[in-house]
Amino acid sequence: MELWYTERGIVPGLGLSVQVSKVLHEEQTDFQHLAIVDTPLFGRMLWLDNIIMTNIKDEFVYHEMISHVALNTHPNPKKVLVIGGGDGGVIREIIKHPSVEKAVLVEIDRRVVETSKQYLPEIACGLEDPKVEVLYEDGIKYVENHKNEFDIIITDSTDPIGPAVGLFEGSFYKSCYDALKEDGIFVAQTESPFYDEELIPRVQQDIRSLYPITKLYLAFIPTYPGGCWSFSMGSKKYDPETVDLSQKPTYTTRYYNHGVHKAAFMLPNFVRDLINK
Amino acid sequence: MELWYTERGIVPGLGLSVQVSKVLHEEQTDFQHLAIVDTPLFGRMLWLDNIIMTNIKDEFVYHEMISHVALNTHPNPKKVLVIGGGDGGVIREIIKHPSVEKAVLVEIDRRVVETSKQYLPEIACGLEDPKVEVLYEDGIKYVENHKNEFDIIITDSTDPIGPAVGLFEGSFYKSCYDALKEDGIFVAQTESPFYDEELIPRVQQDIRSLYPITKLYLAFIPTYPGGCWSFSMGSKKYDPETVDLSQKPTYTTRYYNHGVHKAAFMLPNFVRDLINK
Repeated sequence: MELWYTERGIVPGLGLSVQVSKVLHEEQTDFQHLAIVDTPLFGRMLWLDNIIMTNIKDEFVYHEMISHVALNTHPNPKKVLVIGGGDGGVIREIIKHPSVEKAVLVEIDRRVVETSKQYLPEIACGLEDPKVEVLYEDGIKYVENHKNEFDIIITDSTDPIGPAVGLFEGSFYKSCYDALKEDGIFVAQTESPFYDEELIPRVQQDIRSLYPITKLYLAFIPTYPGGCWSFSMGSKKYDPETVDLSQKPTYTTRYYNHGVHKAAFMLPNFVRDLINK
Repeated sequence: MELWYTERGIVPGLGLSVQVSKVLHEEQTDFQHLAIVDTPLFGRMLWLDNIIMTNIKDEFVYHEMISHVALNTHPNPKKVLVIGGGDGGVIREIIKHPSVEKAVLVEIDRRVVETSKQYLPEIACGLEDPKVEVLYEDGIKYVENHKNEFDIIITDSTDPIGPAVGLFEGSFYKSCYDALKEDGIFVAQTESPFYDEELIPRVQQDIRSLYPITKLYLAFIPTYPGGCWSFSMGSKKYDPETVDLSQKPTYTTRYYNHGVHKAAFMLPNFVRDLINK
């Protein structure tokens, strides 16, 4: 019997349907519904509140692109903070950079980390690294209590519904700004420019009100609605578009390279119009 | 009652689900099943054999990107051939270029053109232009009978199943090469690099065996599987990556600009690996 799951609800009128071979794990955590399913096309997938978070087939795009753009823009990132990102994929990418001395993951839901370690070891594999500290607490409170400490802060959140709403608010962006050092960089995933025409200009405005350098960049992510995903960046000093990228990366990636880094900021006209709204 | 349609079959294990408000037209033509449906998210959509071809919301991406990259690479495109493309979107973009004197559309299925004119006038609007000739015949035979005639040939085909299979074969590519002038450019849509790992390297090899300059470029198309779509290009003389794009376009676009032109060729590592297979 062929079983299919259709993700609906993020974008009204749209669904992504995925054939499912087996539900490997399912639970209601203190924060959300969590499921690990196996699929013929994507391999194992992590769903939170029935929304696709990550999967073995295409996770490399999101995790590389939310990490390496900022990490290659900053000349010497030593201390990096990840808010959310309990699957560990962003941490795995961050610790590829030899300059990084400490990476802190602040995930509100301990079960995301534990389940990812068990079922998605390819993604969660960096979480035991001695440079990595994993904290189970509210990311919003954490950044409020840390000042002038991080070179890079990455918000690897769920969609702006449910537990992550606060991670898309101006007060959170201000706390992140204050938690960054004087030349720090902030990055957040900010949904699809085809479907989220309200969120992207609002976040861009919030970031622009704080940082001298505000950018949006794009990546191809097949399992997120529309396959076109945006990342918003605020930078206190370094411009990701003019930074010297002539040195080859010392680590392996499957999506990111320096051409892709430059290309990601070359926005289609309708996206340019959206961020300048 | 909420009605949904799920497109399945192109990529095993994957489906795109779209809420449908009304089926406006449905028929079995001599070549395929044709439907025009109205949807809350995408507006009117054209489906052929139950596969999404185009829609009012995102059609600009595909039509601009399959056309303007080659048209801006060639210094003086006068005569352009489109194989397939019965909805008229590619023609609409081609005739935006002031150098174009003649655009020929060879569509095997007359009903696609007629239905698009009736239900998708925003897309089909260029088909009545005096520079445009519309022929209802087999594109494969057409290119076999024309030599050294076109500056640009664009294959705007359906997927490589059903009536379009022959448009992905080496013999067709050879005929297109011969139908191009000595500095001509060939472009074809070639599916998703995430899901079609067999087709893309095969087409690239076929093109490479004919043209001194062979390229692949990408665009974000939400309604095609994975949202990441590839275009394969063979060029006899002009390199799309080194061409001078300093002059601003004289026409309006919603996706294409000269930054996007350059960026589209900056391929993620896994796509680079795929085309060099």
